[in-house]
Amino acid sequence: MKISALLTSAGINIGLCVLFLSLYSVLRKQPANVRVYFGRRIAEENERLRGAFILERFVPSTGWIVKALQCPEEEILAAAGLDAVVFNRILVFSIRIFSLAAVLCVFGILPLNYFGKDIQHVRIPSESLDIFTIGNVEVKSRWLWVHCVALYIISGVACILLYIEYKHIARLRLLHLTSATSHPSHFTVLVRGIPKTAKKSCSDVVDDFFTKYHSSSYLFHQVVYKVGKVQKIMTGAKKAYKKFKHFTDETVDQGCRSITYRCCLCGASSNSFKLLNTECEQNRGKVDNQVSLNSDDEECTAAFVFFKTRYAALVASEILQTSNPMKWVANLAPEPEDVYWSNLWLPYKQLWCRRIFTLLGSIVFMFLFLVPVTFIQGLSQLEQLQQRLPFLRGILKEKYYMTQLVTGYLPSVILQIFLYTVAPIMMLFSTLEGPTSHSERKRSACCKVLYFTVWNIFFVNVLSGTVISQLNVLSSPKDIPVQLARAIPGQATFFITYVLTSGWASLSSELMQLFGLIWNFIRKYVLRMREDTEFIPSFPYHTEVPKVLLFGLLGFTCSVLAPLILPFLLVYFFLGYVVYRNQLCSFQLLNVYRTRYDTGGLYWPIAHNTVIFSLVLTQVIGLGVFGLKESPVAAGFTIPLIILTLLFNQYCRNRLLPLFRTFPAQDLIDMDREDEQSGRIDEIHHQLHSAYCQFPDTEDVPLEKIKIVGGDEEQGSSSSSGESTGKETSEDPKMDLSHPTLKRLPITRLRHAVRSITFLIRLQKRGLS
Amino acid sequence: MKISALLTSAGINIGLCVLFLSLYSVLRKQPANVRVYFGRRIAEENERLRGAFILERFVPSTGWIVKALQCPEEEILAAAGLDAVVFNRILVFSIRIFSLAAVLCVFGILPLNYFGKDIQHVRIPSESLDIFTIGNVEVKSRWLWVHCVALYIISGVACILLYIEYKHIARLRLLHLTSATSHPSHFTVLVRGIPKTAKKSCSDVVDDFFTKYHSSSYLFHQVVYKVGKVQKIMTGAKKAYKKFKHFTDETVDQGCRSITYRCCLCGASSNSFKLLNTECEQNRGKVDNQVSLNSDDEECTAAFVFFKTRYAALVASEILQTSNPMKWVANLAPEPEDVYWSNLWLPYKQLWCRRIFTLLGSIVFMFLFLVPVTFIQGLSQLEQLQQRLPFLRGILKEKYYMTQLVTGYLPSVILQIFLYTVAPIMMLFSTLEGPTSHSERKRSACCKVLYFTVWNIFFVNVLSGTVISQLNVLSSPKDIPVQLARAIPGQATFFITYVLTSGWASLSSELMQLFGLIWNFIRKYVLRMREDTEFIPSFPYHTEVPKVLLFGLLGFTCSVLAPLILPFLLVYFFLGYVVYRNQLCSFQLLNVYRTRYDTGGLYWPIAHNTVIFSLVLTQVIGLGVFGLKESPVAAGFTIPLIILTLLFNQYCRNRLLPLFRTFPAQDLIDMDREDEQSGRIDEIHHQLHSAYCQFPDTEDVPLEKIKIVGGDEEQGSSSSSGESTGKETSEDPKMDLSHPTLKRLPITRLRHAVRSITFLIRLQKRGLS
Repeated sequence: MKISALLTSAGINIGLCVLFLSLYSVLRKQPANVRVYFGRRIAEENERLRGAFILERFVPSTGWIVKALQCPEEEILAAAGLDAVVFNRILVFSIRIFSLAAVLCVFGILPLNYFGKDIQHVRIPSESLDIFTIGNVEVKSRWLWVHCVALYIISGVACILLYIEYKHIARLRLLHLTSATSHPSHFTVLVRGIPKTAKKSCSDVVDDFFTKYHSSSYLFHQVVYKVGKVQKIMTGAKKAYKKFKHFTDETVDQGCRSITYRCCLCGASSNSFKLLNTECEQNRGKVDNQVSLNSDDEECTAAFVFFKTRYAALVASEILQTSNPMKWVANLAPEPEDVYWSNLWLPYKQLWCRRIFTLLGSIVFMFLFLVPVTFIQGLSQLEQLQQRLPFLRGILKEKYYMTQLVTGYLPSVILQIFLYTVAPIMMLFSTLEGPTSHSERKRSACCKVLYFTVWNIFFVNVLSGTVISQLNVLSSPKDIPVQLARAIPGQATFFITYVLTSGWASLSSELMQLFGLIWNFIRKYVLRMREDTEFIPSFPYHTEVPKVLLFGLLGFTCSVLAPLILPFLLVYFFLGYVVYRNQLCSFQLLNVYRTRYDTGGLYWPIAHNTVIFSLVLTQVIGLGVFGLKESPVAAGFTIPLIILTLLFNQYCRNRLLPLFRTFPAQDLIDMDREDEQSGRIDEIHHQLHSAYCQFPDTEDVPLEKIKIVGGDEEQGSSSSSGESTGKETSEDPKMDLSHPTLKRLPITRLRHAVRSITFLIRLQKRGLS
Repeated sequence: MKISALLTSAGINIGLCVLFLSLYSVLRKQPANVRVYFGRRIAEENERLRGAFILERFVPSTGWIVKALQCPEEEILAAAGLDAVVFNRILVFSIRIFSLAAVLCVFGILPLNYFGKDIQHVRIPSESLDIFTIGNVEVKSRWLWVHCVALYIISGVACILLYIEYKHIARLRLLHLTSATSHPSHFTVLVRGIPKTAKKSCSDVVDDFFTKYHSSSYLFHQVVYKVGKVQKIMTGAKKAYKKFKHFTDETVDQGCRSITYRCCLCGASSNSFKLLNTECEQNRGKVDNQVSLNSDDEECTAAFVFFKTRYAALVASEILQTSNPMKWVANLAPEPEDVYWSNLWLPYKQLWCRRIFTLLGSIVFMFLFLVPVTFIQGLSQLEQLQQRLPFLRGILKEKYYMTQLVTGYLPSVILQIFLYTVAPIMMLFSTLEGPTSHSERKRSACCKVLYFTVWNIFFVNVLSGTVISQLNVLSSPKDIPVQLARAIPGQATFFITYVLTSGWASLSSELMQLFGLIWNFIRKYVLRMREDTEFIPSFPYHTEVPKVLLFGLLGFTCSVLAPLILPFLLVYFFLGYVVYRNQLCSFQLLNVYRTRYDTGGLYWPIAHNTVIFSLVLTQVIGLGVFGLKESPVAAGFTIPLIILTLLFNQYCRNRLLPLFRTFPAQDLIDMDREDEQSGRIDEIHHQLHSAYCQFPDTEDVPLEKIKIVGGDEEQGSSSSSGESTGKETSEDPKMDLSHPTLKRLPITRLRHAVRSITFLIRLQKRGLS
């Protein structure tokens, strides 16, 4: 590939970027798209703008960029959580280190590479890109020490920056822990592997155990019910409901939000059955609770146990409870919003099996993915492609710009399309693994996507570029440094185009929310669906973190060998900084994403490990290159660098990683004391009763408002459930599963609920006749 | 190698074994050797036999074998600790699984191998050993499924037996924990990384921290002093003492046990300076304590912290104390006898560095060891040796039995001699690592020796047999199954001779205590040293456990491929069972070894992992062999076996391993309650005050008995320090470092001590003049 082809590709992408950014700045001002770019609330506020036509709306502006850059870290932390800050710090770290690397390598190493061999230079635009890589330096060159020094400087500065960031984030994590008013999760332990006894109910077993062994700090508990059974009953009820609803489709509103669409001809919606449907929703929620309360004896496998102090909960979660490590397994509970309820009832015994099988599954998937990647790689190596498909030769020779396009652009686009399937599949694997929280699931998916990306985009591309049959690669680990050293400079071309397409273009499309925009358009104007006020996505860390880290890996490995990639990469990171900050900054709740859950900065250790891996890989490749160039001094000096980097990593693991695995007792005890002295502790204990609610359908229906419909006893007026605010105020007296009166009456209430459903069906029938 | 050569080798070894065993049964009855085979106490009891001459003494007997076999497990547990039981169970497991394997493979697979190819068989004694390996089976043989089934049966039964043993030992560990009256270590936490403050003394800092954050359960603490400084002062004092002692050598007894020997002409020892020396010893002890008390401010880096209950100590050891994971690091303390005092004061910050560097050191040592091993391997491959050293050809051809000896015996003997250096070197590495207990140090050395043994004896021998240049091996991991599959049958010969020499012969010499016997003889009759009543070695688990596990590995890997090794191995395990049981059985305290410390069964996880590794390796080799023999069915069936074995291992890790890492809270709480109800807890708390004593020199000198010699104030009579019983009764009111009166007077006491020494020196001078 020549400079001109690269410039073509860069030109296309710059054009696309500018287009997308301008489009964004225009589209975000359109009332019709307000739901794509802003949250629900701002949508309501902007209602008044809906009809008006203002010229300003159609002029591109840059105000949002300034706003994004000005937003301070504290605001991001307050609005979007620690994960957003971590993501922001990853970008800041990348910008810092690659600014240095770009200056160092473009002005120090690029000229050395270019004039490395005593050859005739043509005009720069027609120059092959390989001229700018280390491949152009002569064997036994006197100038290789410069490369070695650059490697030292980059590694050293990267380690220092990493350490500063690690410490900063650890501090923030502690601050986040201590500054928050009261996380119910700090007082709560999720207990799994509760042993079954024939005599006592599960709830009693939990109560007995914790009263006996944690009497001084045990508060109360809340049993988690197996959702499977409940859902089975619910599905039956729903089916019956739908069967009748099918006939009354034209008059019944979508209050219960079934999958029927209002067709374009309908006009205004009727409210005729609104009341009924609302009741139905409420009943559904109640049935959930009551059926589950009934299934107490056999179905429970987990429980939330609440403690008086944070420290007691921490202690209970850290120690081995009994002599059977598979029973009474206690872990700190996730935040109420973060709980992944449908995994909680999984038997603890299964989990290790699930973990192994999903691991195997992901590995198999990783290797099966090689097939399309190999094909794509063939495209970028035009000569090989022409050899394999001879008929292409004629076409490609005639049209020059076609060649440019095929080599410069097409491979990355195809790869990109394939890559879109990866994240959902990895998310599925992570779900099957059985995590108990959404954040854990996303973090696990993030790791999987990262491994996948690094293997399939970096290694396979690098190695298939030279070896073609990838499986041979596995058979000679000793040669890998040399292999990589030969391959990386050659593959730098591909990586530069990858940065351009996958980096720049996908960032702009992320900003534009292309998919969201299209989906919004289709839903609004083709399907004519009502706006779904509930669905606001949370930030896809599991796709974005690996993407940024992959570009970091590309940057490190190419920095010394093929420095031409660095300016492009730096532009990517700057752009990413603006775009992601815009998405995450202080108006985040009002902007695109909603922060429902937070890992508490657990993405940072992933990022740290990846950077260390990238550094060591760079050094190993450097070792290979210096070996190839027969420079024993430079190669000899690289070995201590590798050892020092690994020692630094080990130091960080000892010094900072434990803080990301558990909480320090000192801080928790201090917080407990403060709460006790200020008397806030009773209030917190009271709030715990309503903190965890297994059946989210009833989240917004306070206990008082539930009136049971039908039968012979009660038939009250019901409040509209449409007023759900999405925001959860924990002061509301919600469905309290551990409430003693509720516990006593499960069977009678179940009968009650069944009666309500039959009454409902009867009512529907009457409406039909 | 031919059957006849093997039989020669076996014959030599059987002869040696019988000789050694008979010698043992005779020598153990000789009064002169009673110190080698029995402990100190029985030596005293048998004093009366010393002179008598009884014929029975010189007749070999078998009574000890019967006695060893009859000794029940409970007695071993009571007398020699859990580690001895674990070692015994490893042997029992090996005997069980290899009995089955031997029956299965000798009667099922050996004939198949022997008649595997349609060739002319010569007389069996002249038959090459290779005829009995799987190498003799035809490619695409119909009978390979028998090998596959045998592999399944051996793996399955091994896993079942492993699980039974694992569970049994876990149960014993819990029993050991709960049945013991009161281990002071259960109430004690070893705290390291105590932060230094300018204002307060270290002791106050510890007190403040634990009073603040563990107020409800904190009892008191005891600071550990840096031994280095104390020792420096001591060395100075000793030098001064020796300088003068040099002149008075003929009249001064070895009360202070310096390194001077009583020559043969001296006759009875004089007691003239006995009193003085005893005083000197006492003073030395006191100086230790006082100097250290003085160095309080700067030197302390660790402390023992005592808690009211076992549970509180467990909790303190499990949680992260502060937001700096390198400060206030708490771990459950080792038993008082087990504490490795000289490592306690190491700064905690250093430890991770030390661990990495010793790891690197051991790896380097492992690879440097390749040199002699390669040479030895050359010896066993006679043809290669003759090619390299042509002059040997003539010698070896002429003398037939020389060839037999060189191929069958010499290589293992040379290897054996080299191997004797490994254990001390690994022990040194483990010491440098900075463990806080003797048992941890020994366990760490055990792991290192195990890795070393498996790599250098198994892998290098196997791979160098076929590849010659070992480093090439590293470059092709994919070919390793095939490589191993080719090599193992060929190397079976070497392994059989290894079992004969290293296994049988070394077991008999272990029983005979050959080195001990020789050393005893030299000391007694050549050097004419006084009997050292203090020195009784503890059982060398770090050499014996790896040895037994290596033979297990050989057995598993050869079982299906070259079953001829199994009968020899089985004899080894039976012999080992008798010999080790004799050493460890109920009279263990009176027999050879003394149990000073115990890991609490932590050798079992090492054994378990090694067996699993051996099984998987066997299966991988089987896969390679079936691949070589082009039997896709057998190869295909081996893959699920590997996966199942790994799953089984994972299950054990989840189900049983946590019990070996920590203690279950339930049991500890139950024990605490029992002690509280029975009122025993106060007694235990009182005992804790004197449990840990840093300076073992003063262990046997009660505080009351110490009178300071010299100076102007006091000059009392001193008790004889020679009466130390070796047994430690914790009821004695020993040196209490945390006693408040002692703490207040460090400097005056130090002056006092210095005065005593100068007085002492003056006294010596006067004696001289």
